[in-house]
Amino acid sequence: MTSTTYQRIVLAARPKGKVEPANFRLETLAQPTLASLKNDEVLVQNQYLSLDPYMRGRMSTAKSYADPQALDKTMIGATAGTVLASKHAEFKVGDDVVGMLGWAEMGVVHGRELRRVDAKIPLSAYLGVVGMPGVTAWYGVNKILQAKAGQTLVVSAASGAVGSVVGQLAKLKGCHVVGIAGGEKKCRYVTEQLGFDACVDYQQAQAKKELLINLQASLQAATPDGIDLLFENVGSTILDASLACLNPHAKIALCGMIAGYNSVATPLQNSSKLLTMRASLQGFIVTEHMEIWPLALQELAGLVASGKLNYHETIAQGLAAAPEAFIGLLGGQNLGKQLVKLC
Amino acid sequence: MTSTTYQRIVLAARPKGKVEPANFRLETLAQPTLASLKNDEVLVQNQYLSLDPYMRGRMSTAKSYADPQALDKTMIGATAGTVLASKHAEFKVGDDVVGMLGWAEMGVVHGRELRRVDAKIPLSAYLGVVGMPGVTAWYGVNKILQAKAGQTLVVSAASGAVGSVVGQLAKLKGCHVVGIAGGEKKCRYVTEQLGFDACVDYQQAQAKKELLINLQASLQAATPDGIDLLFENVGSTILDASLACLNPHAKIALCGMIAGYNSVATPLQNSSKLLTMRASLQGFIVTEHMEIWPLALQELAGLVASGKLNYHETIAQGLAAAPEAFIGLLGGQNLGKQLVKLC
Repeated sequence: MTSTTYQRIVLAARPKGKVEPANFRLETLAQPTLASLKNDEVLVQNQYLSLDPYMRGRMSTAKSYADPQALDKTMIGATAGTVLASKHAEFKVGDDVVGMLGWAEMGVVHGRELRRVDAKIPLSAYLGVVGMPGVTAWYGVNKILQAKAGQTLVVSAASGAVGSVVGQLAKLKGCHVVGIAGGEKKCRYVTEQLGFDACVDYQQAQAKKELLINLQASLQAATPDGIDLLFENVGSTILDASLACLNPHAKIALCGMIAGYNSVATPLQNSSKLLTMRASLQGFIVTEHMEIWPLALQELAGLVASGKLNYHETIAQGLAAAPEAFIGLLGGQNLGKQLVKLC
Repeated sequence: MTSTTYQRIVLAARPKGKVEPANFRLETLAQPTLASLKNDEVLVQNQYLSLDPYMRGRMSTAKSYADPQALDKTMIGATAGTVLASKHAEFKVGDDVVGMLGWAEMGVVHGRELRRVDAKIPLSAYLGVVGMPGVTAWYGVNKILQAKAGQTLVVSAASGAVGSVVGQLAKLKGCHVVGIAGGEKKCRYVTEQLGFDACVDYQQAQAKKELLINLQASLQAATPDGIDLLFENVGSTILDASLACLNPHAKIALCGMIAGYNSVATPLQNSSKLLTMRASLQGFIVTEHMEIWPLALQELAGLVASGKLNYHETIAQGLAAAPEAFIGLLGGQNLGKQLVKLC
């Protein structure tokens, strides 16, 4: 990129099953100037792009909570960056802002679509622990699960951007917290760095062939008092194993089902537990609950500032690395929040 | 039976998969007398025994909401009958009462375990439409689904003791009501006698081989505006088809999963709809909500008395017919409430 052009990535073709690099196309465009801005518009240089599992859903045309990503348009995505030029009274050059500018090195948006953030916390954190993933965790733990001291909470994808916050918030409330994650490294991170009481390694269970039976046994051992609260990010066999361990009147916050995003998920065998345990389950998408964002962001920022909430980032370098990083995210390659550093 | 003996049926062996007649044993016992009663006990001649799907769960030792039925003890069950002898101040000979005396022609219980009923409504109705099945429907429609005019409600096992009340209560609230039932006769009953707007025949879909795909298509045709409220009695492929038609923010009352009671249920393929539609699901068992029974029973009795709530009974003759009738119930042979006439 020279100073007068910038790059973006568009959806070139919808994936059939697994996402592949060929589903994306890198394009070079002319850089907007101050003169090209309309009233109230802001030109932002993006420093970080957030990669999130929900993007997989947008790439397909299946009916969901949002319209599909359009072909040949900039891929949707949250960004954190710096104002380069502004015709909006509330933003000036050099301001740090977060927005939804997509997979692009820069972009122009109306000022109302940006949020200015202060410099007390690293800018990238506003895309993770103090951003959408953090608020997602906060909503599930506080509003759906209403976690209370002494309860056992299980969270899948425990080392991820959402799961890592879920478990820490629940620990702060006095819950017994058990994570499920893939691989020894992630499990060690979850227990040693994040302070979870235990973490079940589903890859170890997988190695033993009969995944569900083994995972169920590992989870039962880690939750001797059963599961009161389940924050589900994965679905499929991972969810099935947790269903088998539910206590009566268990609550489930259904946040993600990443196991099925790239392919047809393994059908659910233990759905009868929802009945026999009189469970309640709530599927949710945090952008439908904007009313709780200010409070959630304030609490999360406070916890990060005071060192009570840890986070980890996996950072890919340069926009061109975004497709591979996204494919890695869907395959569980990342530890913590997956970002792309854009400049 | 002579006048000095009576019969009961005990659980002889736990079923492995399908329930079979050999799981039960008919026994003859000496009839209790007034002299044999302790203080506050009542001897009841049972006129009707209620057969209900939950009994299948009790026959197995799998962890559930209630302890399993003990071997060699009288099978659990609700009964309606007449007082033969009483040492309880509130009951006198000839009173009509309902209780849980089990699969037996008579029995002795403490008076606090009986409820006296009046004669304005046929005695058998207190085991169905104005009994546990009716209250189950009432709780699901009013407390979980909170059905409102204009919403589309789907109920499976629509011609059964619970489903038939669910649909009629929802119609009274102004819902668009679609049933799912097995066979033309049941579907005709549901639309013509109970006033549902439509009924999908899953047996017809089954005949076409690819059950889920065909059932889904039939249900989609019957619910052009999608499903807002789902009262689920069956589970398995029937539930899967409904999941595929859910609207955003749909509510599900999970009352039964009879498809899996006798065998391993077909795993659930469409669980991701719970997430993408941000659905809420509540498993429930109505005996955990005793506080609503008085109001529910009063409303249901009023609706029956005023002719606004119809019901149908399938009545097997004599206690010895109970095992076959129960096996038939699990296979969907009954229309409406399955009872056994005991005398």
